[in-house]
Amino acid sequence: MQRIRVIQYGLGPIGCATAKALLEKEGIDLVGAVDIAPDKVGKDLGEILGLRKKLGVRVTGDAPTLFRKVRADVVTHCTRSFLRDVYEQLEQAAKAGLCVVSSTEELLYPHLRNPGLAVKLDGIARRHGSTILGTGVNPGFVMDTLALVLSGVSKSVRSVKMVRRVDASTRRMPLQRKVGAGMKPAEFRTLVKQGKLGHIGLMESMYLVAEGLGWNLTSTREKIEPVVATKKQVTKYFTVAVGQVAGIKHTASGYSSGRKVIDMDLRMYIGAPDPMDAVDIEGDPSLNLVIHGGVAGDVATVASLVNAIPRVLEAEPGLKTMIDLPIPRAFRAI
Amino acid sequence: MQRIRVIQYGLGPIGCATAKALLEKEGIDLVGAVDIAPDKVGKDLGEILGLRKKLGVRVTGDAPTLFRKVRADVVTHCTRSFLRDVYEQLEQAAKAGLCVVSSTEELLYPHLRNPGLAVKLDGIARRHGSTILGTGVNPGFVMDTLALVLSGVSKSVRSVKMVRRVDASTRRMPLQRKVGAGMKPAEFRTLVKQGKLGHIGLMESMYLVAEGLGWNLTSTREKIEPVVATKKQVTKYFTVAVGQVAGIKHTASGYSSGRKVIDMDLRMYIGAPDPMDAVDIEGDPSLNLVIHGGVAGDVATVASLVNAIPRVLEAEPGLKTMIDLPIPRAFRAI
Repeated sequence: MQRIRVIQYGLGPIGCATAKALLEKEGIDLVGAVDIAPDKVGKDLGEILGLRKKLGVRVTGDAPTLFRKVRADVVTHCTRSFLRDVYEQLEQAAKAGLCVVSSTEELLYPHLRNPGLAVKLDGIARRHGSTILGTGVNPGFVMDTLALVLSGVSKSVRSVKMVRRVDASTRRMPLQRKVGAGMKPAEFRTLVKQGKLGHIGLMESMYLVAEGLGWNLTSTREKIEPVVATKKQVTKYFTVAVGQVAGIKHTASGYSSGRKVIDMDLRMYIGAPDPMDAVDIEGDPSLNLVIHGGVAGDVATVASLVNAIPRVLEAEPGLKTMIDLPIPRAFRAI
Repeated sequence: MQRIRVIQYGLGPIGCATAKALLEKEGIDLVGAVDIAPDKVGKDLGEILGLRKKLGVRVTGDAPTLFRKVRADVVTHCTRSFLRDVYEQLEQAAKAGLCVVSSTEELLYPHLRNPGLAVKLDGIARRHGSTILGTGVNPGFVMDTLALVLSGVSKSVRSVKMVRRVDASTRRMPLQRKVGAGMKPAEFRTLVKQGKLGHIGLMESMYLVAEGLGWNLTSTREKIEPVVATKKQVTKYFTVAVGQVAGIKHTASGYSSGRKVIDMDLRMYIGAPDPMDAVDIEGDPSLNLVIHGGVAGDVATVASLVNAIPRVLEAEPGLKTMIDLPIPRAFRAI
């Protein structure tokens, strides 16, 4: 099997974890690393990752030059959540003929909020032989791809429901902060109104499911509420008092011709009991799938990025979604 | 959306259920029907399906002539379990440039037992622009595709286990007979030795999973045992006395370099408690998925055949497996 040359773009927590996973993977050569943080540029990647050895890969802030100088096949891209913020990074990779697997949440279904950018990027990718995919665990798997896959053994599917419960106390600090842990409910609600709180990608998941099932959503509803602590919660990073926000409840529904066809219920909070992912399909047959304990966010996101590499390399050029590619699967399982 | 013209090949229980599902499906025209049974040939398909109206589709035993005379896109093929028994049927469809979605169990992974025929059929299909896929619920989904999909969010996958429990009393008569219900254990064991009992497709599922995960199986073990009734069981079709066979336990394991990497446990018997499908992945993260109640065999098989139609039509020509095609999903859900 031919070796695959990968550039890691972005060295935040997910990017570093992805780089480590790539280093552990048989058949992969990590040939470059990009990050703009001044305290990372110029250093050896091994140092940034906290390894005891140098890797001979120097972190650069100048991606276009790296793309020109280093021979690579694919970029694993973990920088920002919104397509408009990462568009230029993706365009540069595409123009260099590099494939991209990205954790950018909006890229799961880029046509939803940025149809113009999506069409433009797709055209550039096609012209330069680049395949671009946004994936991850949520969005990317538990509340979209998995539901679609399950629907494959049901006919006359009438509705789909996805539920995810995450005990945020088991997650890293940025996630605990992101769900509002420790805030006052009023503060939480203000941030929601300002568009600064909420799970990014939930609506992208909904629209991917709708497209996969051939549903034209005529309206959607979305609600972001605080989950208020009813008992004191202490995590490694936060203490949440009774009455403070323990986390988030983000729900959404999609309607087609007035009928509710998609229901999404995501709760991520400190102390959430019985973490799990579930999909309910109402059809013939109706189906109820549960992943007890749930799919761990960060590790699973890293896994899904790395596992997508061969499928992206084999796919036709263009901006793709999880619907376009062959089934997800572990890449060179050990 | 363009309408899809389908020929139903085979009018046994699964074939008839598939034909009915096709008739209910928006955007599909059922344009032909094939069966060799003398009591079916020449009759209107509506009569065979037990409908009150004629469909204007006459059942023929002469598939090649039908393929020449009727304009069609795809054949839904539900005749036999073994590739050697259906090879000629598939070749005729391929030579007519028709795509095929088939319930033939061995076709799930045709290279396992018939590599020569698989290579030949693949070549013919490619030359004539035909795409051929074997699928269903088992094999085709619960003990193979679903496990692969789940592995997509785990890295360092070390092993995979698939478990399926079916209460055969809820299934149609041929299945109850197929699992040995009502036999004496000695009779069951004799039939196993003669290769006449056992779930067809279990080893195909295992090899599909192994290929999907990049594992080269160095050895496999397979065991077919009777499940003996410990209390009297009465179904619509059978009465099973204490000490008689209630059904089958068919297990298999796959090893790679001496390590067990795949474990399969299928039990189908009258009175099986808590029917379910489960996948356990040992990796990072480890994952445990359960479909409580299990995925109903016949309806789900029909669904997976019909749902595969658009994916097969869009795929490149050749003999494909579930690994090659985009993710399963309900086709034009209502």
